[in-house]
Amino acid sequence: MKPVDLLLAYLDEDAPYGDVTSDAILPERSCKAHIRSEQSGIVAGLEEANLLFSHFGCEVRSFCRDGDTVTNGEILISVKGRASAVLLVERTALNIIGRMSGIATQTRKLSGIVAGVNPGCRIAGTRKTSPGFRIYDKKAIVIGGGDPHRFSLSDGILIKDNHLALVPLKEAIRAAKKSTRYKKIEIEVESLEAALQAAKEGADILMLDNMDVGRVTETIEALKSAGLREGLVLELSGGIDENTIRSFAGLEVDRISIGALTHTVRNFSVTLEVLPVME
Amino acid sequence: MKPVDLLLAYLDEDAPYGDVTSDAILPERSCKAHIRSEQSGIVAGLEEANLLFSHFGCEVRSFCRDGDTVTNGEILISVKGRASAVLLVERTALNIIGRMSGIATQTRKLSGIVAGVNPGCRIAGTRKTSPGFRIYDKKAIVIGGGDPHRFSLSDGILIKDNHLALVPLKEAIRAAKKSTRYKKIEIEVESLEAALQAAKEGADILMLDNMDVGRVTETIEALKSAGLREGLVLELSGGIDENTIRSFAGLEVDRISIGALTHTVRNFSVTLEVLPVME
Amino acid sequence: MKPVDLLLAYLDEDAPYGDVTSDAILPERSCKAHIRSEQSGIVAGLEEANLLFSHFGCEVRSFCRDGDTVTNGEILISVKGRASAVLLVERTALNIIGRMSGIATQTRKLSGIVAGVNPGCRIAGTRKTSPGFRIYDKKAIVIGGGDPHRFSLSDGILIKDNHLALVPLKEAIRAAKKSTRYKKIEIEVESLEAALQAAKEGADILMLDNMDVGRVTETIEALKSAGLREGLVLELSGGIDENTIRSFAGLEVDRISIGALTHTVRNFSVTLEVLPVME
Amino acid sequence: MKPVDLLLAYLDEDAPYGDVTSDAILPERSCKAHIRSEQSGIVAGLEEANLLFSHFGCEVRSFCRDGDTVTNGEILISVKGRASAVLLVERTALNIIGRMSGIATQTRKLSGIVAGVNPGCRIAGTRKTSPGFRIYDKKAIVIGGGDPHRFSLSDGILIKDNHLALVPLKEAIRAAKKSTRYKKIEIEVESLEAALQAAKEGADILMLDNMDVGRVTETIEALKSAGLREGLVLELSGGIDENTIRSFAGLEVDRISIGALTHTVRNFSVTLEVLPVME
Amino acid sequence: MKPVDLLLAYLDEDAPYGDVTSDAILPERSCKAHIRSEQSGIVAGLEEANLLFSHFGCEVRSFCRDGDTVTNGEILISVKGRASAVLLVERTALNIIGRMSGIATQTRKLSGIVAGVNPGCRIAGTRKTSPGFRIYDKKAIVIGGGDPHRFSLSDGILIKDNHLALVPLKEAIRAAKKSTRYKKIEIEVESLEAALQAAKEGADILMLDNMDVGRVTETIEALKSAGLREGLVLELSGGIDENTIRSFAGLEVDRISIGALTHTVRNFSVTLEVLPVME
Amino acid sequence: MKPVDLLLAYLDEDAPYGDVTSDAILPERSCKAHIRSEQSGIVAGLEEANLLFSHFGCEVRSFCRDGDTVTNGEILISVKGRASAVLLVERTALNIIGRMSGIATQTRKLSGIVAGVNPGCRIAGTRKTSPGFRIYDKKAIVIGGGDPHRFSLSDGILIKDNHLALVPLKEAIRAAKKSTRYKKIEIEVESLEAALQAAKEGADILMLDNMDVGRVTETIEALKSAGLREGLVLELSGGIDENTIRSFAGLEVDRISIGALTHTVRNFSVTLEVLPVME
Repeated sequence: MKPVDLLLAYLDEDAPYGDVTSDAILPERSCKAHIRSEQSGIVAGLEEANLLFSHFGCEVRSFCRDGDTVTNGEILISVKGRASAVLLVERTALNIIGRMSGIATQTRKLSGIVAGVNPGCRIAGTRKTSPGFRIYDKKAIVIGGGDPHRFSLSDGILIKDNHLALVPLKEAIRAAKKSTRYKKIEIEVESLEAALQAAKEGADILMLDNMDVGRVTETIEALKSAGLREGLVLELSGGIDENTIRSFAGLEVDRISIGALTHTVRNFSVTLEVLPVME
Repeated sequence: MKPVDLLLAYLDEDAPYGDVTSDAILPERSCKAHIRSEQSGIVAGLEEANLLFSHFGCEVRSFCRDGDTVTNGEILISVKGRASAVLLVERTALNIIGRMSGIATQTRKLSGIVAGVNPGCRIAGTRKTSPGFRIYDKKAIVIGGGDPHRFSLSDGILIKDNHLALVPLKEAIRAAKKSTRYKKIEIEVESLEAALQAAKEGADILMLDNMDVGRVTETIEALKSAGLREGLVLELSGGIDENTIRSFAGLEVDRISIGALTHTVRNFSVTLEVLPVME
Repeated sequence: MKPVDLLLAYLDEDAPYGDVTSDAILPERSCKAHIRSEQSGIVAGLEEANLLFSHFGCEVRSFCRDGDTVTNGEILISVKGRASAVLLVERTALNIIGRMSGIATQTRKLSGIVAGVNPGCRIAGTRKTSPGFRIYDKKAIVIGGGDPHRFSLSDGILIKDNHLALVPLKEAIRAAKKSTRYKKIEIEVESLEAALQAAKEGADILMLDNMDVGRVTETIEALKSAGLREGLVLELSGGIDENTIRSFAGLEVDRISIGALTHTVRNFSVTLEVLPVME
Repeated sequence: MKPVDLLLAYLDEDAPYGDVTSDAILPERSCKAHIRSEQSGIVAGLEEANLLFSHFGCEVRSFCRDGDTVTNGEILISVKGRASAVLLVERTALNIIGRMSGIATQTRKLSGIVAGVNPGCRIAGTRKTSPGFRIYDKKAIVIGGGDPHRFSLSDGILIKDNHLALVPLKEAIRAAKKSTRYKKIEIEVESLEAALQAAKEGADILMLDNMDVGRVTETIEALKSAGLREGLVLELSGGIDENTIRSFAGLEVDRISIGALTHTVRNFSVTLEVLPVME
Repeated sequence: MKPVDLLLAYLDEDAPYGDVTSDAILPERSCKAHIRSEQSGIVAGLEEANLLFSHFGCEVRSFCRDGDTVTNGEILISVKGRASAVLLVERTALNIIGRMSGIATQTRKLSGIVAGVNPGCRIAGTRKTSPGFRIYDKKAIVIGGGDPHRFSLSDGILIKDNHLALVPLKEAIRAAKKSTRYKKIEIEVESLEAALQAAKEGADILMLDNMDVGRVTETIEALKSAGLREGLVLELSGGIDENTIRSFAGLEVDRISIGALTHTVRNFSVTLEVLPVME
Repeated sequence: MKPVDLLLAYLDEDAPYGDVTSDAILPERSCKAHIRSEQSGIVAGLEEANLLFSHFGCEVRSFCRDGDTVTNGEILISVKGRASAVLLVERTALNIIGRMSGIATQTRKLSGIVAGVNPGCRIAGTRKTSPGFRIYDKKAIVIGGGDPHRFSLSDGILIKDNHLALVPLKEAIRAAKKSTRYKKIEIEVESLEAALQAAKEGADILMLDNMDVGRVTETIEALKSAGLREGLVLELSGGIDENTIRSFAGLEVDRISIGALTHTVRNFSVTLEVLPVME
């Protein structure tokens, strides 16, 4: 849906003065190539790769779609076109697929763990994305089954510890509520007391930050006792990983946000193989 | 040295319509804040963070410089300015520092291992960078002590397997040499025979791709026997990691390129803490 | 807070090849000038004017601030600098002040009417803004005391009649809720039945579109009877204007959105007067 | 004729991170939709709407063209394509049509009044346009039958009161004439004396600013007596509106410029209606 | 006056990934440097060079100004700053000064020849400029004493042979006059008859294209006989050069336009010399 | 291969507000036109012209290709499309073809002279290109048979006199070699001694700057005596022109770089002729 412009900017980064190797050694000929996965997981970024190859006049044939589970060695797409075009786009396309599939794969994996113990709870992203690539980092989370969370500072109100160092909690929530009725108000809290106060003031979402399982449990109980749990979204954040996520997901929480989904991405390995065409 | 424009584009990605939270709840006041490391390693991205904060009128004081080794808990820079400016820049600055320091730290670590067994050999990057961020990914490698390798398809000739699927090795090297005398010619080879042939044709750099220690050793011996080793740069690539790098570095090679340096970055943890200012 | 880049793009639109008149007839001299209101109302856009004049090296002195009420003939800001710079910026600055102050003035006026009958109800904007100027159209609404509503399609979920032509209401709300917990879900409804159903499904905001006072009253009563009014935001939209707003505001609604705030702006008249400087 | 880039920038303003509503609730399906006028007048902006829908792969069928007179309820264009594409473009297209048709309609209306009393006189625009939208504001004036006047400071010489505060009239005109022979020289005059002097110095166009009918009449008579009327273009400007324009147009003038054409636009009401497609 | 953005784009073209040489070999030190002319002529582009060096934090001291006559070996400006900044800007600054001074020098030279035989006649530019550099090509013509002529297709009406292949002369002029009263109407004519007809129809400027001295003389006489010379601007164009310009300038013409001024520029030789600073 | 964006920016420079002449006088009609050479030489820029015309919906038919030798009067391409599109693109296309063909023609001419006396020696470009047009200036050199040399400061290491004013030669080469193994190291030397020292330190390319034939000969002899000539690339630069190039090319050198190829371009004359189409 998105125009190809941002993708072309990535390509320009990879070839500000064209591809000197292809310009030097490649005769004007066409070729066929496959993009093949080198591991199993969830693929993402195929739509973007497709747009780029098509923009340079290549024909693309898709063997699977974003979000599909693929196995090691599977062909994802094949392209046919001028060899110089295929090789110009190659690295940019692979970098996009590699990063997005890495994110989608890990999101799906954690989502599976969480769903196993608490169907109402989901994995969420953060704004800890790679600069210049956020729109695709977020898309990959969605493809992997996660909740993208805020896209930017402009689309959600989230009162964090740094705001609270400057404005008292009550005053902050009231000012936020006064500013607009069209956005949910989320607030980061680090104690049971702050959680109760924020819920009383009408926050829509509490981000329980860096609490251990015991403190989260206590906080939820206190909210329930005070009749404040219902209608409230509870998000956990802070240092939760593959090893600890199951125990947190078992609590009555709605979202677990994981910065590592996008700040510490394990690249998904894909490769492009050229097959010469008979001319 | 670089103008602030690319950095501002990252910021615009994080705040296309400004920061709705700060706009809603923050009175017009100034604040002071620290950026603090939450782990030890090599820092990078401070120059970029500094540029961004300064662009929005904040005063920045630096406690260390890009490339310095820092410990957990150390203050890296402090900033002083309008609270709304500090919080607008916060996430973008932290994302940049987190990614660049992560790359620099890992580059330094691998460089240390390599230097221990072969002072003439160095770690090199690849083009497997995060789209939109390459200039900073490459800079982080340099800060970590690595060789940045090619920046883009425009600045170096590298004949890869996909070219060789279309053009015979000899013809490819000759065409490359004919095109320019101002760039080195690198070629990816996967066999001893290809290595010998490429060296004979006058390639400047051989990338020995996906060879095990034994085959690399054999290839180097064959090149030496043929009197072709001198003046040649030997690069190893393909799946070398922390565990295997020492054994490869011990061979008579010049560069070991590692895609994971930038495609699978372990984020370096940093945080920004606001301290209210007495007004 | 926003960098000056977008403002410079507006200026470039007004002078792609510079100002041929000033270049031709103006000696290199400095001047002083005032920007003066030619009507009373709420001023906005002064921050933007200030940024532009400052960017070209002019000294700016402010006599009032965005959001202030001014009277006909009042000096808003004075600038001092090269005459060619002052005249280059003049029209762009006046166009910005004229449009933003026009929006702020009308927003404040309608806000006053509404506040008189229902302190809990506020005026809201829409996305019916002038293309290329939305960030400032929205800012002017806020300066005038309104709720900016969604900035864009990316920052809020709003299910409209055109979606409902394609997806049944229930299914639409469920899909929306499943996609994220971080955004409120608003839905446009045109009948009492749809309103009840949407509220039952858990929509956060109902936009009662094009209903007359009687039908709005009935719908609110039905929601209250069903125990669904509490926690729900009710927005009225569709053809409400200065003449009819008071009767709608008297109902138990939270927001009245008015497309005309930004699609049919009455320009606020301001002028720039140059005073020659003794040199 | 114009490439689609500026239009895409408007769209990006409306969807920096895509359309979260359609992404959430719309299955991958196609739809058909109409854009329908909700009032009578002159339509403009259809070419731009067409370009945008086409850019996203929709088929567009036109029922009328820019400049046509339409009545309330008429279908202007129909589009067919992916529902998510149609809804992504909807608001931007409607905003453009609404603003441009509003300008064209008012221009045509005033042009009709003027033509009725003085066929040689025409309505003209000013630079009081909405920032970021000038090219389309000017195009709408032309579609409505007006003279676009200067596009920018770069394409015409116009000596205004602020220049004359710094440079004497004679000196200003001489400098302007010396600078180029390829542009007409227009000068704003507020008195009969200034008008005579400017005409004697060879100005091509006099802008009689803020004069009442009597003073305009006197000035024209004086110019005729002095043999200076012929070859001179006379433009009236300053506060002329629908009510007063007829009396001014009856004088022997050539152009009447109206800032309100673009600074105070009455939006032309259009709507997009989706019709589900049988699949 | 112009923001520095276009200049920075030129610099980005010269250093998409920074300056690898300075980054590699230059310690962090400051230096002083001169820009010195290597020939005599009229300098231009100093304002642009100054902006670029200043943007990177260098102090600039000017020894002369755009439009000054300089001799071989003269110092034009000196700069002081970080060596890496000075060397980053060097080539871009020299390219700009070299091209602009080349244009200004040639314009001044031809202007001198023309002024010697016909003080009312001046040299004019064309749109045959270097793509991406027109604003500076035109500025250099003005600095050299020429008339810049049209900046672009948007700011002047010029009916050329290619239009006349599609529309008859009379019809073309009438349509042009009808479209606007704010621009002069120029028409290219290649025969005496066309010249007379165009003048009768009210064209403001005749471009006598590719006529020899005899035919120009005849045409002027015919225009005078018909009482059509007065008020008309006569421009000669087409293949006039240094050798032939004097004979054409002696005729009663107003402008001689020379495409070679900008399409065939003789570079003005300047050099930058670094002087190490004692630290 | 390159997307059309940069070309469109050139076009926007020529028509920021469209083409007022065509808009005024041209009915909506199609036409056919030829681009014809007005001299003999090597054509370049046809691919770019083709892209531009195609972007605006014109059909293009090519009669020759970039790099072909053409004679005066030959038709290069023909285009068919809307007249307004053909005339909008005309000047930009001709400017590009004119400049690129001028460069290609002169490169081919000098290449021919050099090849006649020394088949191993080739003409090379410099960074003395027209700002904003470098990618096409370099492409034209390649089309003409030259070596493009460095594209930018980022893609090759070249140590010049200004660096050596700040860092001693030995230290500079060592630092450069340490920074990367993927780029050749070139150094500018002005004496036999510097040449010998640079070659000993392992420079890959020596640029012998501003030496006469005698000194170049001596230097080469000295390098040979010292056993340093082999494997070294020798480039001559500085003031070599058509008259002197033959004697330099006869020496045992590899490249002769000529700034004038791009800083002092003789425009290649081409014209576009419109032929009306029967409709």
